[in-house]
Amino acid sequence: MGPGPLNDLQAALARLPGIGRKTAQRLAFHVLRRPREEAEALAQALLAAKDAIVPCPQCFNLAERHQGLCDICANPRRDRQVICVVEDAGAVLVLESNQLLRGMYHVLGGLLSPLDGIRPEDLRLDELVVRVRRDEVREVILALNASAEGDATAAYLARLLTGLTKVTRLARGLPVGADLDLADRVTLAHALDGRQAL
Amino acid sequence: MGPGPLNDLQAALARLPGIGRKTAQRLAFHVLRRPREEAEALAQALLAAKDAIVPCPQCFNLAERHQGLCDICANPRRDRQVICVVEDAGAVLVLESNQLLRGMYHVLGGLLSPLDGIRPEDLRLDELVVRVRRDEVREVILALNASAEGDATAAYLARLLTGLTKVTRLARGLPVGADLDLADRVTLAHALDGRQAL
Repeated sequence: MGPGPLNDLQAALARLPGIGRKTAQRLAFHVLRRPREEAEALAQALLAAKDAIVPCPQCFNLAERHQGLCDICANPRRDRQVICVVEDAGAVLVLESNQLLRGMYHVLGGLLSPLDGIRPEDLRLDELVVRVRRDEVREVILALNASAEGDATAAYLARLLTGLTKVTRLARGLPVGADLDLADRVTLAHALDGRQAL
Repeated sequence: MGPGPLNDLQAALARLPGIGRKTAQRLAFHVLRRPREEAEALAQALLAAKDAIVPCPQCFNLAERHQGLCDICANPRRDRQVICVVEDAGAVLVLESNQLLRGMYHVLGGLLSPLDGIRPEDLRLDELVVRVRRDEVREVILALNASAEGDATAAYLARLLTGLTKVTRLARGLPVGADLDLADRVTLAHALDGRQAL
């Protein structure tokens, strides 16, 4: 149909999640209409983010390569004895942007899912246990999606940490089946306030 | 909130049309999760499209820089005596993907719009008149959006080409106010079949 480089760009854009063929075409035309600097800025931001951002060696949240620990782990005013366990770094951003927690985070890197073949050894569980012991953690708050996988992971973690620390999870203020990313501040605050011991 | 390079990437993505803050974040996280090769492919496709694609010197459709004329103008089997006038290169893609025309195209680069300050001298009108005279064009088909700007541009072109060639426009099969990009094949076919002399 169109010139090859245009088709290539549309194909590359359509590989992004939630970007269909029509949207990819609209975006590609936008890029062609705008000054080269804008395409350069986007291209450079893609590679810079990819190169500069690595998992924090302690909590596996996103960190800048040259900084070592992530901003939260490096912050001496955070409470090291409360760890909020989340599925991925996106959940950290959601919780941080709402400023609801003074503790630390631990990013599991997924949720247990027999169907998808995600087993305990695929998650960062050993690293969590090491932190809980080393920092004498008072409470581990499980902030996981209210899904079957989230519940399975919560149950597994509750067993794993028995006797080591108190384990709580977000109250069922979250609508069942909902994605944590889509919760609003009030719902999140209710869920945090009503967290229950497991 | 997040690390700087992540924020930069989200900001660059959010500058794209129809990409809000949430979507930009989702896309940025996707890029971070996927192999570097994918980010490289997208970055490279952005710059390659920007560098390799230029307006066709004859019809102002998209063309590859090293090829000179666009694929349609370079195709000897197209009817040079029928020119379909469109607002932008996106409209060419829509019409071509539905294979409804055997003629050529002429991309105006916009529609007349006193409100937006787009005047006749901002459109590629002289180039159209030159082609109509040189190729002894039998018919100019105006395939413009069914909007106030589309109607104003059609009326202007009908006057401009009076005595030079027959001017038709797409039948009002298009719902009033609709965007040409969103029309389906049947609607487009009706609109072409029922085109009316101006």
